[in-house]
Amino acid sequence: MTFFQLQKTCGNSAARAGVIETGHGRIETPIFMPVGTQATVKAVSPEELEAVGARIILGNTYHLYLRPGTEVIGRFGGLHRFMHWQRPILTDSGGFQVFSLAELSKISEEGYAFQSHLDGGARHLLTPESAVQVQMALNSDIMMCLDQCIAYPAGREQAAAAADLTTRWARRCKAHWQAAAECPNALFGIVQGGMFPELRTRSVEEIAAVGFPGYAVGGLSVGEPKALMLEMAAHTLPLLPAGAPRYVMGVGTPADLIEMIALGADMFDCVMPTRNARNGQLFTAAGTLNINNARYRDDTAPIEPGCDCYTCRRYSRAYLRHLYLAREILVHRLATIHNLHFYLRLVKEARVAILEGDFPRFRKAFYAQLETGAGGA
Amino acid sequence: MTFFQLQKTCGNSAARAGVIETGHGRIETPIFMPVGTQATVKAVSPEELEAVGARIILGNTYHLYLRPGTEVIGRFGGLHRFMHWQRPILTDSGGFQVFSLAELSKISEEGYAFQSHLDGGARHLLTPESAVQVQMALNSDIMMCLDQCIAYPAGREQAAAAADLTTRWARRCKAHWQAAAECPNALFGIVQGGMFPELRTRSVEEIAAVGFPGYAVGGLSVGEPKALMLEMAAHTLPLLPAGAPRYVMGVGTPADLIEMIALGADMFDCVMPTRNARNGQLFTAAGTLNINNARYRDDTAPIEPGCDCYTCRRYSRAYLRHLYLAREILVHRLATIHNLHFYLRLVKEARVAILEGDFPRFRKAFYAQLETGAGGA
Repeated sequence: MTFFQLQKTCGNSAARAGVIETGHGRIETPIFMPVGTQATVKAVSPEELEAVGARIILGNTYHLYLRPGTEVIGRFGGLHRFMHWQRPILTDSGGFQVFSLAELSKISEEGYAFQSHLDGGARHLLTPESAVQVQMALNSDIMMCLDQCIAYPAGREQAAAAADLTTRWARRCKAHWQAAAECPNALFGIVQGGMFPELRTRSVEEIAAVGFPGYAVGGLSVGEPKALMLEMAAHTLPLLPAGAPRYVMGVGTPADLIEMIALGADMFDCVMPTRNARNGQLFTAAGTLNINNARYRDDTAPIEPGCDCYTCRRYSRAYLRHLYLAREILVHRLATIHNLHFYLRLVKEARVAILEGDFPRFRKAFYAQLETGAGGA
Repeated sequence: MTFFQLQKTCGNSAARAGVIETGHGRIETPIFMPVGTQATVKAVSPEELEAVGARIILGNTYHLYLRPGTEVIGRFGGLHRFMHWQRPILTDSGGFQVFSLAELSKISEEGYAFQSHLDGGARHLLTPESAVQVQMALNSDIMMCLDQCIAYPAGREQAAAAADLTTRWARRCKAHWQAAAECPNALFGIVQGGMFPELRTRSVEEIAAVGFPGYAVGGLSVGEPKALMLEMAAHTLPLLPAGAPRYVMGVGTPADLIEMIALGADMFDCVMPTRNARNGQLFTAAGTLNINNARYRDDTAPIEPGCDCYTCRRYSRAYLRHLYLAREILVHRLATIHNLHFYLRLVKEARVAILEGDFPRFRKAFYAQLETGAGGA
């Protein structure tokens, strides 16, 4: 079984369509992965995820390692049965959360030493080996190497050191993964290098030399200006092996996805559609709308006329606004369903355009519709 | 179309089985009505309510009148289309919430003058006529008369005055309802009288003399001892017209339902299954369990082995406990589905036992199973 098959490159752009095969089914790319941090994509059920077209979701190793712990999830043979999700799962390495959430985290050649953000007391050590080990216990279909994340802005020296450490850790991750007898799951390498093109180039060369079934571009969407993010992606993505999937971590807005796809990226994850849904911000082709806006008080129209998601087929803006103002949790679910449906429809339509060989026209139409601003509020 | 048909009285007890016909479908009794205060039964969708066997839900007039307001709901032709619920709806009159939630409420012969608990500023007047008028705008299938609720304990004089006012208001409610051209919906009278049997008797006589399609026993489950509640119900229920449905408001625990059914009650509503679900308390035939208990840490069993609700068919106690501790809102939904399924299965099984002419045996089996305490935690 080939892990990744590149089906088509657009022709008029670097946009690609492909297929990833996993033990829990196939994933057509480009794909967006809803974020399910704590063994649940917030506010929605597995059946609702399937209904909006989710083919793969992301789990956060750091959170799951601390709670409920791999021992509990191990009792279920992994994350799939624990959370009743049958399709593929990608897990991150935990490194980013240690960096951003844990207390008193200290990095060394060995790994991250940290205290849990939950109890504040227990000390933990996250090494390249344990990061892979935990992800194996979760039985995620796609595991990520432990890498070193750096804040933006960072100097050249710091970025170089982090990229170098990431390379050494990538070798240890791969060795640990290969030592496991017949692990059916994939391990992706992560490219770092900050906002320095030459460091990005070197990181790609080193990580590709280690060799993985797939590659991620890390360290983007960490606070840098949008133009810089796109510049780094435009520099890095073409350097990655064409025969492996390319995952841009933590990205992004609908327009970010369109731009990254145009640059040849295949996979994305972001909390934006789910988190913004819970804050009442809804995505439409004509822009976002905030459901608490008074203009929707007695609006009998759905969020996005023509949308065939569960929410738009049944509920009005007036009802959603009422639930939002009344703090009724059903609105979190209904808004999340719509936003995820929007994101997943977007990548699906992008894929169709790529297969038809005309992604640039699709991209143009996307911006033309966005500029009508009909959804703006 | 007959509004209510009494199909069977148990024979060995006063327990009854019947059918209520409404413009939104039929309801087999005895029935439990999930509470949907703000145009949503908290945490669950209409489809999930149907799946757990809900045939009718309750809406709170006070809340809906204040937010989103009858003007907004009127744009949808009523509550059914606003919240996408196709089956029957019963609404209360709003009186109890004015009494318990509103600020500076003042009662007079005319009605309740109050300030909204939401904005605190706007003054409102809830009269017998406006209570019916608002419920007509909501298009609820079963409307309730405005009554005067009293706190427990209350003296005889106060209870008598409240019951008398309730009777005078019942006449005004009925007159307003009858004046409406061809209102397809039913209006229920409410019996008051505090904890005084002779006042209860007088209230039943007066309310029955006004004449309604159905009758409710109000003023129970307001803080009185359980034995007193049952004593009052045992006194009042047999006095009510046998040919009309009997609704005991705000009751109760599973055992309360069994006792009230044995006394001849047909309809119930209570926030207990939904509210307790959100606090992690789950109902089983062997008693309640608290899902946050450490004993469920790696328990792969469902909440209640053998239960065929959505939650028990898919999820383990360990997963539910994890979601609960992680404050993931999916657990509110999963727990609510189970608890409502439990309540609705209970009344369904009670109905079967009544139709088979042996409710006392069912009641005995209910307590025998409860006493095994297998679910206790």
